[in-house]
Amino acid sequence: MKKPIAIQGVKGSFHHEVAQQYFSDTTEVVECMSFDSTVERLLNADTDFIVMALENSIAGSIIPNYALIDTHNLRIVGEHYLDIQHNLLALNNQSIADITEVHSHPMALLQCKVFFKKYPQIKLVEAKDTADVAKQISEQNIKGIAAIASKNAGKLYGLKVLAESIQTIKHNETRFVIVKRDNDEIVPDEVNKASLKFELDHKRGSLAAILNVLSDCKLNLTKIQSLPKIETPWKYAFFVDVRFETYKDFEKAKSIINLMAENFKVLGEYKNTR
Amino acid sequence: MKKPIAIQGVKGSFHHEVAQQYFSDTTEVVECMSFDSTVERLLNADTDFIVMALENSIAGSIIPNYALIDTHNLRIVGEHYLDIQHNLLALNNQSIADITEVHSHPMALLQCKVFFKKYPQIKLVEAKDTADVAKQISEQNIKGIAAIASKNAGKLYGLKVLAESIQTIKHNETRFVIVKRDNDEIVPDEVNKASLKFELDHKRGSLAAILNVLSDCKLNLTKIQSLPKIETPWKYAFFVDVRFETYKDFEKAKSIINLMAENFKVLGEYKNTR
Repeated sequence: MKKPIAIQGVKGSFHHEVAQQYFSDTTEVVECMSFDSTVERLLNADTDFIVMALENSIAGSIIPNYALIDTHNLRIVGEHYLDIQHNLLALNNQSIADITEVHSHPMALLQCKVFFKKYPQIKLVEAKDTADVAKQISEQNIKGIAAIASKNAGKLYGLKVLAESIQTIKHNETRFVIVKRDNDEIVPDEVNKASLKFELDHKRGSLAAILNVLSDCKLNLTKIQSLPKIETPWKYAFFVDVRFETYKDFEKAKSIINLMAENFKVLGEYKNTR
Repeated sequence: MKKPIAIQGVKGSFHHEVAQQYFSDTTEVVECMSFDSTVERLLNADTDFIVMALENSIAGSIIPNYALIDTHNLRIVGEHYLDIQHNLLALNNQSIADITEVHSHPMALLQCKVFFKKYPQIKLVEAKDTADVAKQISEQNIKGIAAIASKNAGKLYGLKVLAESIQTIKHNETRFVIVKRDNDEIVPDEVNKASLKFELDHKRGSLAAILNVLSDCKLNLTKIQSLPKIETPWKYAFFVDVRFETYKDFEKAKSIINLMAENFKVLGEYKNTR
């Protein structure tokens, strides 16, 4: 039997939406209140797949999630881009003038803060999950408090949309990845993207040399992020995403980088979806 | 007369500590409850300097702060590294068994979550500022709630240290920058580091070409971060920090990158402190 997919947050969350779009509308999910707990569920084999946000166009990479994947030797097996649209949701009998507080995830509050400048009477309060606030408002019939969440969450919990698409940057894309314990079924013909991690000494030109190899092997860089290794001064870790046309090109690059960089690791090989 | 320095958070916060270490122990500060409001104060000339966290070894870059500097054409004129040590603080008559909730900034909660696994009875609640919670506990004599903040905050607000250095990664360095409206007093002999921003088309090898220039001009890369420009597909913005031995080398690199990349901008030229 197919196990449910672990998501961060409750039903109606953006992670739930990604699970439905990537797998199917009727996908069963395990609601987890932290990314850590999604990983625990995966390691305990309560689930075979996690949906995990990895970066967005406003806040950049979610480094702690990279660390979870890296530390537990998990594998990225797919990716999915979601255009995040935030909506102000409240009970059906409420109007925006009734609202004194809005509770949501810090990232959602950040992404909508320009909208709330027009409503100085509304206090912004941080909460754990966007959709969970919608659920609480609905279940406990809470007046005066609004949620910032998706229209789906509004439908699911029977709330009214007081204002739609309230995020400052209208096109607000978040990249999610699908994560497994391991990747036992790579079909070279079906993958054209990979997420890599490697370490380099702080020596002039060391990163340029690696990027030259990627370019020579016809790999396209779609993301790069350095992270100083605090425990080892002058050593840097790099998280890099690459796209390639043929798996052979990628294999060649892998074998060269393996010789040039330290602690080289493939975090995932998967099919690019954008 | 010297204007006070704008900091995010209240006295006793890590930003306050940086202001004291970078300027002097007796530095006057303006307490701001968001990074946006520090920038407003700077643009209104209520202050001439902001202290702003820019990246840390656990969560990576604070992209919204890069965006604030970039959007408002501010200039980085200095940097300061602080080894962040988190401590569990509460009223003097409290022991850890009395604590049912700990309130702190989401980043501090994240950095200490392993410690709290031993205390499942303690609920983690997100708050706006680490030191502000310490201040509230002290002023309102709140029992049962602990703060995560620096020892300085504990001293300032007369709280007891229930547990010290509770962050998971013991060496937890955050990089702060000192930001001005403009930089009118660059002394080439005194600067050896710069923060740059530029944009590139998604063309194979385009970033490698830029890094080769940096390397040829004897510049050392200390940080790199890509950020997709969502409004313009296949275009990427890069934030790069470089160190150099002579300003002349840097000037040469600037003039070449200016020709190779789009929207090239120097966010700051300053003295490296590590």
